[in-house]
Amino acid sequence: MAVRLKDIARDLGVSVVTVSKVLRNHSDISDETRDRVLKRMKELNYRPNLAARALVTGRSFSVGLVVPDLVHPFFAEVAKGLSKILRKKGYSLLIASSEEDPELEQQELDMMLARRVDALVVASAQWTVESFRRIEEQKTPYVLIDRQFAGLAANFVGVDDEAVGALATSHLIEQGCSRIAHIRGPELSTGLGRLEGYRRALAKHGLAPLPGYVVMGRSVDNLSDTSGHEAMLRLLELQPRPDGVFCYNDPTAMGAMKAILDGGLRVPEDVAVIGAGNVNYAGLLRVPLSSIDQHSDSIGERAGKLALSLVESKTAVRPRTVLLDPGLVVRASSARA
Amino acid sequence: MAVRLKDIARDLGVSVVTVSKVLRNHSDISDETRDRVLKRMKELNYRPNLAARALVTGRSFSVGLVVPDLVHPFFAEVAKGLSKILRKKGYSLLIASSEEDPELEQQELDMMLARRVDALVVASAQWTVESFRRIEEQKTPYVLIDRQFAGLAANFVGVDDEAVGALATSHLIEQGCSRIAHIRGPELSTGLGRLEGYRRALAKHGLAPLPGYVVMGRSVDNLSDTSGHEAMLRLLELQPRPDGVFCYNDPTAMGAMKAILDGGLRVPEDVAVIGAGNVNYAGLLRVPLSSIDQHSDSIGERAGKLALSLVESKTAVRPRTVLLDPGLVVRASSARA
Repeated sequence: MAVRLKDIARDLGVSVVTVSKVLRNHSDISDETRDRVLKRMKELNYRPNLAARALVTGRSFSVGLVVPDLVHPFFAEVAKGLSKILRKKGYSLLIASSEEDPELEQQELDMMLARRVDALVVASAQWTVESFRRIEEQKTPYVLIDRQFAGLAANFVGVDDEAVGALATSHLIEQGCSRIAHIRGPELSTGLGRLEGYRRALAKHGLAPLPGYVVMGRSVDNLSDTSGHEAMLRLLELQPRPDGVFCYNDPTAMGAMKAILDGGLRVPEDVAVIGAGNVNYAGLLRVPLSSIDQHSDSIGERAGKLALSLVESKTAVRPRTVLLDPGLVVRASSARA
Repeated sequence: MAVRLKDIARDLGVSVVTVSKVLRNHSDISDETRDRVLKRMKELNYRPNLAARALVTGRSFSVGLVVPDLVHPFFAEVAKGLSKILRKKGYSLLIASSEEDPELEQQELDMMLARRVDALVVASAQWTVESFRRIEEQKTPYVLIDRQFAGLAANFVGVDDEAVGALATSHLIEQGCSRIAHIRGPELSTGLGRLEGYRRALAKHGLAPLPGYVVMGRSVDNLSDTSGHEAMLRLLELQPRPDGVFCYNDPTAMGAMKAILDGGLRVPEDVAVIGAGNVNYAGLLRVPLSSIDQHSDSIGERAGKLALSLVESKTAVRPRTVLLDPGLVVRASSARA
């Protein structure tokens, strides 16, 4: 039989209200009473019923996170950063993966709304903004991460994707590459922003992509090493052959490097490679991979703080955008100079 | 204003009980009525209040997962497999990371119990079984994964760790290695089982570890590439030098390979290396890494199925152990024969 507040109150000869106030950390309880109540709770192994509290307070003290792929190290690091912030504030983390499927994402969002999460953090696989309108109707605050939507004024935490593309491409130019290809990402803000940064950096140096130099892998984040491999094989058939390639993300770059090395070419002497995301183990690859650091754990932490501030603010606030500056991490795969 | 069951009942001229039965998929409702109710729910964008349902049914339709490290690919894959099973059954997944800290794990378990999760799946960082006794007192079913505890009769899903160690070590012997070292894991069932399998395989071939050939890294799963690197440096100083090394897990093996290659030695010619876990990208490393596959996504799926069967069984059942057979994946790091 679960211990109830009234059991504790009866044992100590105080009111249920007093016990409840101790639980909610009210200030009008003496230290002595507080200590007695907490001691008795511990002795009886009392556990507050958070489901009941949720109904009374209208808060579930939980935040939902929906990402396209739990195994992708970027999203795993975001989850870790977010979880760290929530734990400190006594919130729980519900996690779901959409497997890059907009319909599955919608189901998971509906499920989380039905569970009355206090806020949502979403790296969305949607192509339209309709599902966010539905979240807004429920008045549940949400923070987008990683991927933004044109025309949707929403809270966002992520890296500046144009800066990612420009930083990576400028680095390859500085290393002496003159025929720089790009294995681009999907038609999302991340893919489009990085492509734009690549074009901008080339233009700044009086360059432009040669015909066929911008290619797209066949998949997105799942299996992107396979799609990077396949895209690189296409690039290697071009005349003239690229001498540098900026890849949308690290898994794509890993697949691309495999294609280059397996083809008997050298990295970086024949083709320099840079990715984005700076995943674990990038330094331990056949050729350690240069990358752009997106500060994935900071994205999780900042998104968590923003989400909780939205839960706690009583009035509607204007959506905020937190753009983190990417950082260049040079390893052997691009070090030609 | 949220749509309630009685709004739907009134609109259709049926009773609230009827609407509620449709929601719970009762069989005594005609197809026609069911279709009308579902159609109206869709039109009104009705969302069941799962917090209220939880209080009424005593079920939260959620399962909690606590792992030592979300970013470790093994646990990320377990989470993915588990999430797939839960989603099919309409359950949500609460996730928390213990950061390999037993005290933090205890807090997270308490939080999940307070949220009345229907079952727990735990890869535990505990050294004692006390916290499981507390879960048992709450009558919440739980399934341990990855790590077992001597003297605790609990549901368990994982790989056969002795078989992992024996398979890896026998493989190195077959590849012609005669001085095989082991970078061992912590004093948990995984570390101990793999060590035992290593000893058993050596003994079967009339071998025994040379002095100093079994070393332990300084950390567990966090940063295990750093600890593998450091442990390998110690092994390389030994006379005679090992010609093969079985590493507790892949991150450890990656760190060990880096130490060997940076020291000017060749993998596998001078030192053959095998890890365990078969993480993503193992094939893309400086020397593609041989490994023992633990079927991480199957562990998640089997744990999910077992947890839900425990939730649904009305009577206490004897704890079950599901041991998966590990698989050998040979890549360049150990292919000497």
